Amino acid sequence: MPRQITAFSNPLVKQARALRDKKHRRAEGLFLAEGLRILTEAREAGILPERLFFAEASHPLLQALIEATEAAGGEAIETDADILHKISGKDNPQAVLGIYRQLDTSLDRLDRDSAPLWLVAQALRDPGNLGTILRTGDAVGAGGLILVDECADPFSVEAVRASMGALFTQKIAAARWDDFLAWLRRGPGQLVGTSLDTDTDYQVARYRSPTFILVGNESQGLPRAYEEACDLLVKIPMLGKADSLNAAVATAVMAYEVVNQRRRA
Amino acid sequence: MPRQITAFSNPLVKQARALRDKKHRRAEGLFLAEGLRILTEAREAGILPERLFFAEASHPLLQALIEATEAAGGEAIETDADILHKISGKDNPQAVLGIYRQLDTSLDRLDRDSAPLWLVAQALRDPGNLGTILRTGDAVGAGGLILVDECADPFSVEAVRASMGALFTQKIAAARWDDFLAWLRRGPGQLVGTSLDTDTDYQVARYRSPTFILVGNESQGLPRAYEEACDLLVKIPMLGKADSLNAAVATAVMAYEVVNQRRRA
Repeated sequence: MPRQITAFSNPLVKQARALRDKKHRRAEGLFLAEGLRILTEAREAGILPERLFFAEASHPLLQALIEATEAAGGEAIETDADILHKISGKDNPQAVLGIYRQLDTSLDRLDRDSAPLWLVAQALRDPGNLGTILRTGDAVGAGGLILVDECADPFSVEAVRASMGALFTQKIAAARWDDFLAWLRRGPGQLVGTSLDTDTDYQVARYRSPTFILVGNESQGLPRAYEEACDLLVKIPMLGKADSLNAAVATAVMAYEVVNQRRRA
Repeated sequence: MPRQITAFSNPLVKQARALRDKKHRRAEGLFLAEGLRILTEAREAGILPERLFFAEASHPLLQALIEATEAAGGEAIETDADILHKISGKDNPQAVLGIYRQLDTSLDRLDRDSAPLWLVAQALRDPGNLGTILRTGDAVGAGGLILVDECADPFSVEAVRASMGALFTQKIAAARWDDFLAWLRRGPGQLVGTSLDTDTDYQVARYRSPTFILVGNESQGLPRAYEEACDLLVKIPMLGKADSLNAAVATAVMAYEVVNQRRRA
């Protein structure tokens, strides 16, 4: 049975709220996810929260979530909208919040043969972009997202929210560039980067499975040495004044081209 | 010659800072844009700020911007990083900020024959998505973005920033749905919506110029009546668990398909 908490000063409320900060997320190995849709996505992927805060258990999917959480040894806490607001910082908080254990992000957990497409982000700074790329990864049937060098925290509230649940269905790994490259070269995989310094149109190029699409930092793009390590550099046509797309947009345009070539084959 | 301001209490600093709020932007008909890259994009499009704040005029492009602003009757104000921080609210403010007059957003200003592709957003709530769609519009050679129903403010700091200058090179119009539809039907134009309720693959469909790509609200998608008013409904394949893409991502995937069909033709 859910217990009830309505005091702002309750230490569990304070702990949950603290998970909005990266420092606390890292120290505790936990993170926050909000909303019935995202938490249900997680449940269907077999991932349950250690603790659940909810304001009103009227929805059958929320009931299912509470039961599954308690059956797995987690705790369900009934509270009110004010407390949910305090934890999430949102003016219109979702009716349910979960605290999850952070997923293991070691490269060695990835089975590259489990999917024909993988996304790789290098020094991506915007958590919203990161979450959006995860969401796209789900849509294109990618296996997951590999974060190279210092990226935004995939367990931040913004990234989890933008991923719309894909954080729980896509694999996530984090690695330094050298370690990623060594891992990549131990097996099959075509590393594809987008670049301004190539004449190869992204629709003319041919992609081999598993394809690893490498996206660079939002303002710098890929370092030259990283471009040189790619098996293939392609360019997306730019018909206007700007020379680049938003990083999550570029990833999606590339990923759908890979998917579309396979659909035609 | 630029004048100098270093006092936080200066009314021009307060006025600039107030433009971060929609209420003040609307009352004054002005908006803020930051960064040498974006302001130079605006200058090259023939749009100059009424007032410029800068911290250090060492860059030749900044010098060119100051001269052009003053030559056009605008005011250039030399200040410091603390004041720029106060105006922009950013920890690492750009070295230059401009105050611009808001652009006319009436539909009648659009010449639909000036471009083969137009983007239309319905009740889009995220200013970052809005700016990203403008940036994509530039990349795909769209004429501009039409905002239907209540959308995020295209002149917000977040939208201007995400547009990376495309706010100044893409036309922007705002209209209620009925007015947009009446305007659209007075001339040529294929209205294309993405939908879950169609079997027409977005790559099988054929697009006619000018194509108007209609994107719905982030969480609701398009209202049924709006879908019914479309000339064509298409679906982007979704291979994973989710049934939708981020709105800016979906717009880009659609827009590149239209561009790619024309490149092949």
